[in-house]
Amino acid sequence: MDSLTCTASDLVPLLSSSTNATALASFLCARFSTISSQLSDSTHAIDNTYLLFSAYLVFAMQLGFAMLCVGSVRAKNTMNIMLTNVLDAAAGALSYYLFGFAFAFGAPSNGFIGRHFFGLKAYPSPDGDYSFFLYQWAFAIAAAGITSGSIAERTQFVAYLIYSSFLTGFVYPVVSHWFWSGDGWASPILPNNLLFDSGAIDFAGSGVVHMVGGIAGLWGALIEGPRIGRFDRAGRSVALRGHSASLVVLGTFLLWFGWYGFNPGSFLTIMKGYGGGGGYYGQWSAVGRTAVTTTLAGCTAALTTLFSKRILVGHWNVIDVCNGLLGGFAAITSGCSVVEPWAAIICGFVAAWVLIGFNMLAVKFKYDDPLEAAQLHGGCGAWGLLFTGLFATKAYVNEVYPELSGRPYGMFMGGGGKLLAAQIIQILVITGWVTATMGPLFYVLKKMNLLRISREDETAGMDLTRHGGFAYVYHDEEDISMRPAFMMTKIEPNNASPSTDGQRSPSNV
Amino acid sequence: MDSLTCTASDLVPLLSSSTNATALASFLCARFSTISSQLSDSTHAIDNTYLLFSAYLVFAMQLGFAMLCVGSVRAKNTMNIMLTNVLDAAAGALSYYLFGFAFAFGAPSNGFIGRHFFGLKAYPSPDGDYSFFLYQWAFAIAAAGITSGSIAERTQFVAYLIYSSFLTGFVYPVVSHWFWSGDGWASPILPNNLLFDSGAIDFAGSGVVHMVGGIAGLWGALIEGPRIGRFDRAGRSVALRGHSASLVVLGTFLLWFGWYGFNPGSFLTIMKGYGGGGGYYGQWSAVGRTAVTTTLAGCTAALTTLFSKRILVGHWNVIDVCNGLLGGFAAITSGCSVVEPWAAIICGFVAAWVLIGFNMLAVKFKYDDPLEAAQLHGGCGAWGLLFTGLFATKAYVNEVYPELSGRPYGMFMGGGGKLLAAQIIQILVITGWVTATMGPLFYVLKKMNLLRISREDETAGMDLTRHGGFAYVYHDEEDISMRPAFMMTKIEPNNASPSTDGQRSPSNV
Amino acid sequence: MDSLTCTASDLVPLLSSSTNATALASFLCARFSTISSQLSDSTHAIDNTYLLFSAYLVFAMQLGFAMLCVGSVRAKNTMNIMLTNVLDAAAGALSYYLFGFAFAFGAPSNGFIGRHFFGLKAYPSPDGDYSFFLYQWAFAIAAAGITSGSIAERTQFVAYLIYSSFLTGFVYPVVSHWFWSGDGWASPILPNNLLFDSGAIDFAGSGVVHMVGGIAGLWGALIEGPRIGRFDRAGRSVALRGHSASLVVLGTFLLWFGWYGFNPGSFLTIMKGYGGGGGYYGQWSAVGRTAVTTTLAGCTAALTTLFSKRILVGHWNVIDVCNGLLGGFAAITSGCSVVEPWAAIICGFVAAWVLIGFNMLAVKFKYDDPLEAAQLHGGCGAWGLLFTGLFATKAYVNEVYPELSGRPYGMFMGGGGKLLAAQIIQILVITGWVTATMGPLFYVLKKMNLLRISREDETAGMDLTRHGGFAYVYHDEEDISMRPAFMMTKIEPNNASPSTDGQRSPSNV
Repeated sequence: MDSLTCTASDLVPLLSSSTNATALASFLCARFSTISSQLSDSTHAIDNTYLLFSAYLVFAMQLGFAMLCVGSVRAKNTMNIMLTNVLDAAAGALSYYLFGFAFAFGAPSNGFIGRHFFGLKAYPSPDGDYSFFLYQWAFAIAAAGITSGSIAERTQFVAYLIYSSFLTGFVYPVVSHWFWSGDGWASPILPNNLLFDSGAIDFAGSGVVHMVGGIAGLWGALIEGPRIGRFDRAGRSVALRGHSASLVVLGTFLLWFGWYGFNPGSFLTIMKGYGGGGGYYGQWSAVGRTAVTTTLAGCTAALTTLFSKRILVGHWNVIDVCNGLLGGFAAITSGCSVVEPWAAIICGFVAAWVLIGFNMLAVKFKYDDPLEAAQLHGGCGAWGLLFTGLFATKAYVNEVYPELSGRPYGMFMGGGGKLLAAQIIQILVITGWVTATMGPLFYVLKKMNLLRISREDETAGMDLTRHGGFAYVYHDEEDISMRPAFMMTKIEPNNASPSTDGQRSPSNV
Repeated sequence: MDSLTCTASDLVPLLSSSTNATALASFLCARFSTISSQLSDSTHAIDNTYLLFSAYLVFAMQLGFAMLCVGSVRAKNTMNIMLTNVLDAAAGALSYYLFGFAFAFGAPSNGFIGRHFFGLKAYPSPDGDYSFFLYQWAFAIAAAGITSGSIAERTQFVAYLIYSSFLTGFVYPVVSHWFWSGDGWASPILPNNLLFDSGAIDFAGSGVVHMVGGIAGLWGALIEGPRIGRFDRAGRSVALRGHSASLVVLGTFLLWFGWYGFNPGSFLTIMKGYGGGGGYYGQWSAVGRTAVTTTLAGCTAALTTLFSKRILVGHWNVIDVCNGLLGGFAAITSGCSVVEPWAAIICGFVAAWVLIGFNMLAVKFKYDDPLEAAQLHGGCGAWGLLFTGLFATKAYVNEVYPELSGRPYGMFMGGGGKLLAAQIIQILVITGWVTATMGPLFYVLKKMNLLRISREDETAGMDLTRHGGFAYVYHDEEDISMRPAFMMTKIEPNNASPSTDGQRSPSNV
Repeated sequence: MDSLTCTASDLVPLLSSSTNATALASFLCARFSTISSQLSDSTHAIDNTYLLFSAYLVFAMQLGFAMLCVGSVRAKNTMNIMLTNVLDAAAGALSYYLFGFAFAFGAPSNGFIGRHFFGLKAYPSPDGDYSFFLYQWAFAIAAAGITSGSIAERTQFVAYLIYSSFLTGFVYPVVSHWFWSGDGWASPILPNNLLFDSGAIDFAGSGVVHMVGGIAGLWGALIEGPRIGRFDRAGRSVALRGHSASLVVLGTFLLWFGWYGFNPGSFLTIMKGYGGGGGYYGQWSAVGRTAVTTTLAGCTAALTTLFSKRILVGHWNVIDVCNGLLGGFAAITSGCSVVEPWAAIICGFVAAWVLIGFNMLAVKFKYDDPLEAAQLHGGCGAWGLLFTGLFATKAYVNEVYPELSGRPYGMFMGGGGKLLAAQIIQILVITGWVTATMGPLFYVLKKMNLLRISREDETAGMDLTRHGGFAYVYHDEEDISMRPAFMMTKIEPNNASPSTDGQRSPSNV
């Protein structure tokens, strides 16, 4: 903005032949200064409005994830899973305020961990405002939510409180520091980063958010083992259907809605021209393109899943389609801002098959994840990082990440292999870091008998034993005797083939 | 913006007596040029922020419509209807990206159909950005959703896939081209349009969206015939109640929420002054007024329905109130930007009676529409077009549609009959076009035995036979023996009078 | 903005030595005038966008409150409570349009009640646009919603129609006039207000909205008495559990989402710099801080409730956590814009205990409030007003309320006791006004036998007797005979201790 302002002494020499030169110069400069100040205010107002409403959308994803989780578990564990979803947001706000945000974005710092802004001390500053804190908090709680899906229906509430605080307060913030802060060793905006003068491009967090949550969930679910009854004595997969598909669809749509804050919002600002004076092309356009790539990737994955599962399993299943959709979103999240819309279609198509493949693997290895969270967020998230290394275009990479010049870009777009290499390193590093931190934690919890609930509790349901009662009461007890019997028992089609693994239900392939 | 910029040669003659004239002129012009560029950037940023968040709200309507549909069908068809709602959005995104958007807004083109921007080729341009594409996609999928409501609970999934693609990819885009694109033969922004130098005013789509979806649904439901049991052997109407009024209310409120993106968002931009320099009055004010007229029309229709149905049927029914509300919204959608708030109250009052009347007609002719979609979106949508022709005010019409001068406006406001004539033509043309395209399609599907499900499937419910099982599992099967019986059987009041058609349930009048 | 514009006669004397002075001056002034006009337009566009989308979020709270209410009542009264929620919004729109808004903000007026803008006559003006009307409407309907929660499950629908119109159309608008309009006798923006040159600071309405709704509910519930079965013959509290905890959590999250429109949105504008030219600090920053204090207060209250109730009652209860969260939000609503984030944590911590305390009192006095609305909105709202009097900081008070200079601020922050005194007066005045208006109304309704439903209706449920049937139909009646029995009967833990009041259920402490 400074080029707009001027001081009287700048103008006086120019107007030396005029007797009122000084007054004229003051007159003009005062006006330019006022204009400059108002344009600056307007930029701040627009960008903060944009970021705040994006943050609200990302927060809405927490509601979406809650409903997705609720619908995906059995009725007897509804209160439990909802409590974890509410607490992810609530406890996450306090821990992120006290130290999580400081670990992630406390600048200036080293490449490994931040060290300022504890309790928002000395904040806001010219480099970051409250809106940025709120936006990053909404991201932090998303990661914890993913993990609670993987270990649903069998985890002690105390264990939840411990791992969730550790994940939101330390494990996740460190990862976001590495890849997103200006100081992070792998950050694409750090000029001398350690990754081939490129840094990894994980625009909205296929790795930083989704893989972190997914890998944490993977270790939790592996160490806990499957729910009782999830695999029968012969080792065959038995579907433990969630109790409300309506809530699953509600949650999926809310996540979709919120993803428009997650991906396009990750630009953080919208008031920034890319071209020359007065051009129509700028960050607002890139923001819109990001919303389009996000939409196309998710929708392609949904359609791919629809037809694939129709062929593989034999019916049209809305739960599968929802999971496919979310897998497409998780995958495009890394590259959404730097790829063409047509590439997003490829991203979604592959994501659907990645999810199908990992789900098959899960059945094979008797891995039980009630939300498919490790497969979906971990698997599709990793694919998303690779996809960015393959399809990021030169022009978009340079517009979105102008801090470095001559950046590597997608291998298939002629940008060489450096970006892809950086993306692969990101996958390995995230997997290693989460494994090294969350793995031992879950193991210690198990050894201390704090991890898994008792067999009795699991059969009866945690709502009854730990959370004050069931979530639903559709009748009055006193009136029972007056009423006839009822129920929908046949919850699965007659023609389902129980002899083959992976074909009895929508959720076990 | 260009009036702000200047070149050095403009200023030099003015300052010829000054020795530093050239330098001074450059100095000033550089500043004006920078200011101009930043003001332009700021306009783009504001307008795109406005349009993108409006698009997200319109997308939320898809969730609202899904919940409305789910709650309005019987539990046994929940998975089926939810799958169609998810696919409306997902398949719609691909078809609209590939060709639907091109048919609708591919400019320059002829008056009948667009022919550029296939797969977003050569897009964005100074005339349109990604935000516009996203916004229009969200509209396109709304039309398809309406139709799926009309033919719910009895339509083969394959038939759905076929008609839905055809509607979203071709039938709807062509209509939106006619009435909304700059080239459309009936467009109010085309100087030499074919409709009395007026064009039809269908600001946010009472006709383009709601009538298209409703008329398509009408033909589908007529050709399929009513659901089994909807009319008893004596021909009396029997209510087939939806399974969850809570989801109906949830869906209605979400639609209301999203309508604030649908109607006010249809301005596409908000940063545009209407009056002289520095005035407080501009498009932002018209946008706000549109939100107010929308609210008042829906609310008036809701209240009118509440008291009318209390008198006609005898109880206070929330489902009726929800449908009345939505009818009011569908009606005001055409004229929301060009009428006074008091006129919106008239719009809503009449809309409620239009819906009640069409529902009575539906019972009389044994027409079965589980969502009342044809009556609500078709009937109230048509009323909305007439309403605009009667109540559009001169000042607002000229502000909102400044492309033509001396425009006709509402007949009751002294604007003559031309606008009303254009609106009537729009009703006829839309009815004709949708009938000519969707009618034969449904007929052929029927002849090929692809349209309606078998009697067995309909009785058992499609969820069980086609979609992998029921949507709800509130119990554990193994524990059934331990538990007492339960149910709410008396789902209707004792004092309901079964002898009179149209009075036994909230949904059949 | 006027300082930017200039007329030719201003510049001519300055350039008198130049032969083209007049032309130059015109040239420059025309440009400055255009710039000024565009900056003004841009300010209007930004502020209206901000306020409109905030209004949409506040409207979404109506949906949230509906779902919270639905989940908190028994299944047999679902249709009834939903209808009141829809009508709060619908009837509220008409009454607020016709006279409520005029009573509240019709300026110029006296200190007690407004008297312009009936039916939005002579509106908009430079002082207020449609967006402001819409925003205030969304607030008005929130108050009515709170009250309907207190008297749920036992109130005649006609009584609801009467008290709700009176509350939204008169009682609430008058209170908002006193504390929020520029003319109100207690308004912090009226230079010569009657409260110690301070006025009460109730930024987003802990008192104006929450206490008004809560106190009205208190009188309604007191005069109606508890629901049948709420206290057994021995006078012990018996939980009447809501029928769906999932809907309670859905509603809570939606309220949280909408609160980001309620609190930060109450700034009404965002484009306003606080510091010198080009500074990063302005209203956008205060808006963000308000979102952060809101989040921290609610989350602290949620966590405090979680652990407190675990100790007091023995289980981890998500319904309690949701209510605690909402209590924290209701409390911070008054001071959200003028306190530091760390103070918000204190606000939330105390709010949780205030709610626990009032709930204990309610059981002791056999007060039955199905939504805990009087305790939560009334009790925590009052605490919020006191909190502001204790913790408001000097700098923030002067930035947010610049109309007066040398304002008093929080007592604990060194600002003396004047603000606290004003806050206490606000509590007393609101309690008195609502008691004096709503108390007699409920009493008269009772005397006319219009208030409470009959014993038979209450046992059978209002849905069956008044609203056309139950909300849920999960089965087909014709198929009942084929199906086995079902139900989850044990809705509470075995180890619950029925001998002690307040420990049998999550909702009666």
